[in-house]
Amino acid sequence: MTDNKVLIVGSVGLDALTTPFGHVDRVLGGAASYSSVAASYFAPVSMVAVVGQDFPAENVELFKARGIDVSALEVKDGETFFWAGEYGEDPNQAITHATELNVFADFKPTLPPSHRSHPFVFLANIDPVLQLDVLNQADSPEFVASDTMNFWIASKKDELLEVLKRVDLCLMNDAEARMLTGQKLLVDAADAILAMGPKYAAIKKGEHGALLFGENTHFSAPSFPLRQIVDPTGAGDSFAGGLVGYLASTGDTSESSIRKAVVYGSTVASFDVEDFSLRRLASLSREDIQNRYDLFTEIARF
Amino acid sequence: MTDNKVLIVGSVGLDALTTPFGHVDRVLGGAASYSSVAASYFAPVSMVAVVGQDFPAENVELFKARGIDVSALEVKDGETFFWAGEYGEDPNQAITHATELNVFADFKPTLPPSHRSHPFVFLANIDPVLQLDVLNQADSPEFVASDTMNFWIASKKDELLEVLKRVDLCLMNDAEARMLTGQKLLVDAADAILAMGPKYAAIKKGEHGALLFGENTHFSAPSFPLRQIVDPTGAGDSFAGGLVGYLASTGDTSESSIRKAVVYGSTVASFDVEDFSLRRLASLSREDIQNRYDLFTEIARF
Repeated sequence: MTDNKVLIVGSVGLDALTTPFGHVDRVLGGAASYSSVAASYFAPVSMVAVVGQDFPAENVELFKARGIDVSALEVKDGETFFWAGEYGEDPNQAITHATELNVFADFKPTLPPSHRSHPFVFLANIDPVLQLDVLNQADSPEFVASDTMNFWIASKKDELLEVLKRVDLCLMNDAEARMLTGQKLLVDAADAILAMGPKYAAIKKGEHGALLFGENTHFSAPSFPLRQIVDPTGAGDSFAGGLVGYLASTGDTSESSIRKAVVYGSTVASFDVEDFSLRRLASLSREDIQNRYDLFTEIARF
Repeated sequence: MTDNKVLIVGSVGLDALTTPFGHVDRVLGGAASYSSVAASYFAPVSMVAVVGQDFPAENVELFKARGIDVSALEVKDGETFFWAGEYGEDPNQAITHATELNVFADFKPTLPPSHRSHPFVFLANIDPVLQLDVLNQADSPEFVASDTMNFWIASKKDELLEVLKRVDLCLMNDAEARMLTGQKLLVDAADAILAMGPKYAAIKKGEHGALLFGENTHFSAPSFPLRQIVDPTGAGDSFAGGLVGYLASTGDTSESSIRKAVVYGSTVASFDVEDFSLRRLASLSREDIQNRYDLFTEIARF
């Protein structure tokens, strides 16, 4: 492991989740939570986020136990961001029952001086205006990755396009890639995304794995044959965190390294969905991850 | 190339096809046509099928030019099997406008003595009763693969289950695998199929590639990033033909060889869809195939 630090900005929240496997309430959630914990298996992570006074101390302890620097996790008066969602038979389709922004509504990420020179940055799925804010405070990071969602594509497309001009790798799921570009075929959508600025686009396809596109790159990462998807929440964030964390750990951002990073991201995401919230994700060993990475290698071998 | 011969039984017909790229009428079609031509790039093929008096001689010439033994291609009084189909935006969804069985209605495949000892057999998608007929005439082939479709799963399930008891590898698309087994997850569907008898199940997922399952095998073959699917007809048959042809060419039916065979099948299928009917499929060189196989390797590398 190198000392390359990863800066992650995004939401930290509390979730109420219903899936065919049960229901949990006010459990740890948020894109920055999942991606930071995922990245923490590979590299030192600093998290930039905000929570309310009601945020359980045990969640902060969980971050600390993973070695995550929470000095820029603000605690504000008010309640923590809350999301209530449900998944039916299709783990790719979340039904939102409630979104309460609470303290997140006025979130204005501020990077302390110690955080400005982190060479790896992951802009988790938040308002692209905030993603730009963070980029403007950072000292020319070596590698920036970003995530987004349909909501921002619809409501803040211009700002999102500004973000895409400034990132090395953007992450999207297949539906978002089609929505952003208006292209039906993923190969065409990827071309259109690359023309917007990023050197690489990683497209998540749920049960069908992930694709990585670059100027001369087409990489198809295999999916893992899961038999139980207990809770799909955070799979995409875990994927992103594992990906960026792996890159930071090697310091190598060559195409060959990014391919491996996509598989490490897939590996961590495959664990995430095995239990509710971060229960599985936060209790992995580096050996668990390596063993499953080796299985991915075996699954793709010919 | 070894001298292992491949016996292929199935439909040879004439198609009227409409896709977003145009319309063609009374062009060569049928599962045995596609799979035989695909297999012919790897191994000597003998075709068992029936056509009517109206079957254009140029189609027989096309088979012969590919070195296919057509001595068991019966020509009967009457008209050739005819299918009229259309594809819209989704290349996985064929809309059938007409199916005229014609001489195919009374097809009773008969293996001449010279064809009974072919070590490799592909039972293309026909009535499972006929597939069993062929198996009963064959002299304990080394490797048998079979295809089927939703129509037989619905109408002749018992006979289909008899076939599955006697094949080494069965091919299905994801929807058929789910339909046959009642399992939603493909991993569960594959388990259920393997319990029916086959040593391997190859599940075709269209744009998402193909999966191979065996007792201790899970292989995910990458898909090829096609930008134009001019005519999806015969993709599954080409996949099967390439797969079985490759196995025959090596004489090696180990798991490692079957993985490569799945990729060769995917390779040939990726060419098939680039033009209507067998226009592209029948005009390949072994170098075309190898170059694209190498691209598949590059797409999956990490």
